[in-house]
Amino acid sequence: MICKYVFGKPIETGAVVADVAQCTQPLSLMQVEQGPAGVVLSCQMGPKDVVYGLGEQVRGINKRGFSYISYAIDGPIHTENRHSLYGGHNFLIVSRAQKQPFGIFVDNPGKVVFDVGEARMDRLEIQAGSDCVIYTIEEEGLKEVAKSFRRLVGQSYAAPKWAFGYQQSRWGYQNEADVRAVVDGYHGNGIPLDAVYLDIDYMDHYKDFTVDQEKFPDFAGFVGSMKARGVRLVPIIDAGVKIEKGYPVYEEGVANNYFCKDEDGTDFVGAVWPGKSHFPDVLNTAAREWFGGKYQWLMDQGIEGFWNDMNEPALFYSEKRLKQTMDEVLAMKDQNLDIHSYWQLIEKIDGLCNHPQDYKSFYHNKDGERICHDDVHNLYGFYMTKAAADAFCKIAPHKRTLLFSRSSYIGMHRYGGIWTGDNASWWSHLLLSIQQMPSLNMCGILYTGSDIGGFGNDTTQDLLLRWLEFGIFTPLMRNHAAADTREQEAYHFDRIEDFRNIIRIRYGLLPYLYSEFMKAVLNDEMYFRPLAFDFPDDAHAAKVEDQLMVGESIMIAPVYTQNATGRYVYLPQDMLMVCMKSLEGRQCQVMEKGHHYVDIALNEVVFFVRKGHMLPLAVLDSGLTSTADMEDCEYEWIGYTDNAAEYILYDDDGMTTDYTPRSEWKKTVRTKEELAWG
Amino acid sequence: MICKYVFGKPIETGAVVADVAQCTQPLSLMQVEQGPAGVVLSCQMGPKDVVYGLGEQVRGINKRGFSYISYAIDGPIHTENRHSLYGGHNFLIVSRAQKQPFGIFVDNPGKVVFDVGEARMDRLEIQAGSDCVIYTIEEEGLKEVAKSFRRLVGQSYAAPKWAFGYQQSRWGYQNEADVRAVVDGYHGNGIPLDAVYLDIDYMDHYKDFTVDQEKFPDFAGFVGSMKARGVRLVPIIDAGVKIEKGYPVYEEGVANNYFCKDEDGTDFVGAVWPGKSHFPDVLNTAAREWFGGKYQWLMDQGIEGFWNDMNEPALFYSEKRLKQTMDEVLAMKDQNLDIHSYWQLIEKIDGLCNHPQDYKSFYHNKDGERICHDDVHNLYGFYMTKAAADAFCKIAPHKRTLLFSRSSYIGMHRYGGIWTGDNASWWSHLLLSIQQMPSLNMCGILYTGSDIGGFGNDTTQDLLLRWLEFGIFTPLMRNHAAADTREQEAYHFDRIEDFRNIIRIRYGLLPYLYSEFMKAVLNDEMYFRPLAFDFPDDAHAAKVEDQLMVGESIMIAPVYTQNATGRYVYLPQDMLMVCMKSLEGRQCQVMEKGHHYVDIALNEVVFFVRKGHMLPLAVLDSGLTSTADMEDCEYEWIGYTDNAAEYILYDDDGMTTDYTPRSEWKKTVRTKEELAWG
Repeated sequence: MICKYVFGKPIETGAVVADVAQCTQPLSLMQVEQGPAGVVLSCQMGPKDVVYGLGEQVRGINKRGFSYISYAIDGPIHTENRHSLYGGHNFLIVSRAQKQPFGIFVDNPGKVVFDVGEARMDRLEIQAGSDCVIYTIEEEGLKEVAKSFRRLVGQSYAAPKWAFGYQQSRWGYQNEADVRAVVDGYHGNGIPLDAVYLDIDYMDHYKDFTVDQEKFPDFAGFVGSMKARGVRLVPIIDAGVKIEKGYPVYEEGVANNYFCKDEDGTDFVGAVWPGKSHFPDVLNTAAREWFGGKYQWLMDQGIEGFWNDMNEPALFYSEKRLKQTMDEVLAMKDQNLDIHSYWQLIEKIDGLCNHPQDYKSFYHNKDGERICHDDVHNLYGFYMTKAAADAFCKIAPHKRTLLFSRSSYIGMHRYGGIWTGDNASWWSHLLLSIQQMPSLNMCGILYTGSDIGGFGNDTTQDLLLRWLEFGIFTPLMRNHAAADTREQEAYHFDRIEDFRNIIRIRYGLLPYLYSEFMKAVLNDEMYFRPLAFDFPDDAHAAKVEDQLMVGESIMIAPVYTQNATGRYVYLPQDMLMVCMKSLEGRQCQVMEKGHHYVDIALNEVVFFVRKGHMLPLAVLDSGLTSTADMEDCEYEWIGYTDNAAEYILYDDDGMTTDYTPRSEWKKTVRTKEELAWG
Repeated sequence: MICKYVFGKPIETGAVVADVAQCTQPLSLMQVEQGPAGVVLSCQMGPKDVVYGLGEQVRGINKRGFSYISYAIDGPIHTENRHSLYGGHNFLIVSRAQKQPFGIFVDNPGKVVFDVGEARMDRLEIQAGSDCVIYTIEEEGLKEVAKSFRRLVGQSYAAPKWAFGYQQSRWGYQNEADVRAVVDGYHGNGIPLDAVYLDIDYMDHYKDFTVDQEKFPDFAGFVGSMKARGVRLVPIIDAGVKIEKGYPVYEEGVANNYFCKDEDGTDFVGAVWPGKSHFPDVLNTAAREWFGGKYQWLMDQGIEGFWNDMNEPALFYSEKRLKQTMDEVLAMKDQNLDIHSYWQLIEKIDGLCNHPQDYKSFYHNKDGERICHDDVHNLYGFYMTKAAADAFCKIAPHKRTLLFSRSSYIGMHRYGGIWTGDNASWWSHLLLSIQQMPSLNMCGILYTGSDIGGFGNDTTQDLLLRWLEFGIFTPLMRNHAAADTREQEAYHFDRIEDFRNIIRIRYGLLPYLYSEFMKAVLNDEMYFRPLAFDFPDDAHAAKVEDQLMVGESIMIAPVYTQNATGRYVYLPQDMLMVCMKSLEGRQCQVMEKGHHYVDIALNEVVFFVRKGHMLPLAVLDSGLTSTADMEDCEYEWIGYTDNAAEYILYDDDGMTTDYTPRSEWKKTVRTKEELAWG
């Protein structure tokens, strides 16, 4: 049961698609107070209650013990004290002992604060803002609450099938030669690869919708030649548009008032990569259509996928603040800077970036209505992505174009995925990425993954291997690294065969993973789930923070600590442990419900098949280079059952938005005898 | 067997006390190369080899998979990518499959780099510098290597017994009222407390060896009144001396050339809390004696303990660099700051702090020899602490004065302990502190602990409880927090009884903990040990990264993840699990060797007693306020044995450097029947 409550004069965000009537009864699931700070919802939490959700945030699957602020920010240090990451995902589910769980969605694109037992361990408090729509969802179980919410916010984006292949990125690829070296490095070592990303350096001076002609003299030709090898190029698009006379995007934006405005009505000036820039007013329909249409120029050259970045939007500084700060700094020039003044200096300079006051200083024209950016801050990434997605519908109707974003708000999940931003080559971030996946899925974001190997800092061979062993299960499987970090393309390490084997296992699992992903899209379900969603009556399952259910048949328990050669695993039921050092060689073992210590070698993929379930494994040619080689491949089946079991393998063309399953793939029923798991 | 190898013209560091003759054979345990980069030692590591040691560094007990740089730095963000923390602890032990383990100590107080399998997983490489003494140690077991090394570097510092009580600190206590409120807060809630720390605000404008007269109008009287309540005050001493005409420490230092010198022979100017400061040349005997003597003024007012801080030494900036940077910033004033210039600005300002070039720009006068600071960088904290310790021997001979430091180098362990610096209220830092303890113990640093609850960021009730549950086992048990973070004195939280019970358990365990600490001091042993040190033949023990042996009888397995209500524990032998929710109420259970999942409630202390071992537990009055109340207390005994067992309870006066055990405490033999562990 979904109830809708309206407070103040909320801004229409576009998050919700279902038509829900406003509830006539007052909200009773939580206490409601309305004061100068806006609407505050609160409730007691029992010692065994678990709180799920909030999408892209730090800490565990159970969000208790910290406070989270929905206010998108470009901050690269994702440590435990970070209250905000790149998105605003205001949905949580409270699992209560002996009571029905319930969900809460706060539809407010400004700042929303969730104190999930930080100030007081037993208290959940939500500062929802003055103007918001709140939806409460009561259903009999956790899965049902999540599904009910997902029906409210609409069907999730489905990426093209090639985007489920392995992908490589690095901030630093400069030109054709760099990209070619990556493709050669992978394919030349027998490792499949489906995409290479173009980070900011492909552009002409960081100008959106340009390509540096010196680096890519025949961009369309190069895109085509890579595609002929099975590899798509995926360029980045940034939110900020460079201020430069003669640059058409800038000129058109200014001429048509398509950019966000400063208080005084002039175009707001903030800085990103190219320095001073304007920001397309993506909340304005005309501006959005204009900006979205700009993607066509790249699509015309053969591009089939994009990643939208810096769309919190990130601000290195605002023009006004920089000027003021410089004056203040220079006034300090000959002082004896002590504890107070030295830190003022540091805070002034570090505070240039993404300053909260700057977000309060510019405005949108939401089709006639002037809105302060601060009040709709979390919508920027959503509507920049919607700009692209809406344009794709016109430019390439019915085609699936790869699209994902850094910043997001619930609702954007219908238009694209996200990646989890600028993580680091830390083991703790491998665990964090495991824990973020189900939280994101709850909020509708299904096409997602973290930067495998870690974006910032230098990766290590073992970290990359372990991360890949988890990453083979994430829909977006992309290795990405920052400039000036260690090169982390797989072929730079010893024992390339380990990387080859693990990545090939991804392709082997792809029919299952894609099938389960698409079912989750089409049925409003979660691809990644905490164990408690599938085993609600198992008291220990609710405590497991480092294992996930993946689709209907699999549980994973990734290794995420350095030098570990195994880990503890909790099985909520009897399962079949599948250990693979290569796609072709595997060992299976039936294991009983309960606690186990499992050895998992550094070059080994281990997963667990639920009793009564099975999955297909593609039989692949040793020369496989990309998903393009996987048409009509054959399957082996792995499963575990005492008697007959069934698996519906969903497949479709993987290219269009026609999600009708191909009839010939709609199968199959197997019996115990057919599943050789002994 | 210890072998000594001399390369170049090493600086005498004072790390080693034993007289070891230079080895006549070339170093053969590792490959040695000498080139422009200095001495490089390297060896292959087998897949099962484990590398222990390196003292205060990030990551696990097994140091494999990262590179560590010994170059002390004041950096508060202790994330996984940090190559240096506050000390230089150049000792490691390589545990080799089927071979004897060996230790390596690189006695070089400049920069030393240990790549423990980062560049290549199977390769250990040490860049030892051009001028260094290298000691190799081969013994039959890990414990023996550690002990042999400890004999080389001399007996560890023993703190007074009161310093094993619970201690409270916070950067922000301003005056008498603040300190009194802390003592009232603890004692008024029935929680024992032995010390309150005075961070930088007690001083007059951050001037060493001053007390702000407005805040503490009768300092000696106040110190005495607190001591009468069982609470010592422990003031901070900083490395930098404020440049201020008329301030005697400054005037004397300048007049006698006691400060470090700039290239041009003037006193080097760097900034810390008070702004521009000079730095006592602690490598100069006269300067060191002078600076040490300054502690007397505080001791004369009743102070019995100190913590030395900012002695890497931390530099907010150097006078020269600030001037140059300000000019460079000025030149950027009207530029369009883009990706390159904006980051230059940020790097310039953030780079003011602890700039490597600044450490190369000033000099010591080591009793006649001019030495660039960079070459002896890691000695600063050591010799600042030795300055104090040497002075204490004269000011208060035979008395144990509490002394610990932030920066350190091996050798300093004879003069004082360390705390593990400015950690954060992160769960990952609770784990890090667990992992740092045995690494520090190997290097001789026994009196140590982390800031319980975390220094930076806001703690939470559950984090503080879990941290205390580990902290009751660390010799230094201090709750400390940074300014502007959540108040984390125990009495600020709900369920004060949980805090009271846990801290009282510390006092109950104190006879055992002190006994084991002093035995480790007197016998050159480790108080905290990785499991593999006690169970070298247990293959799994070497993989356990989150359990420690504490003294001879106990193994601990702290909970360090949020919302966990238990954890997996590996028992390398049959043990008795002791679960205590209070000192008076406990449950014991015999558990078999192997893997277990153990429930551990948030308000529960759990530890494991080794078979054939036991420990005393003090019977305490409910009104206990500090260790002062513990004279002549009675003991209960907890133990687990099939037959007779023995425990030698070491005790002494706890106040003097006369370590002769009090004869009446030298006991005891018990039999199974006397140990009620059923």
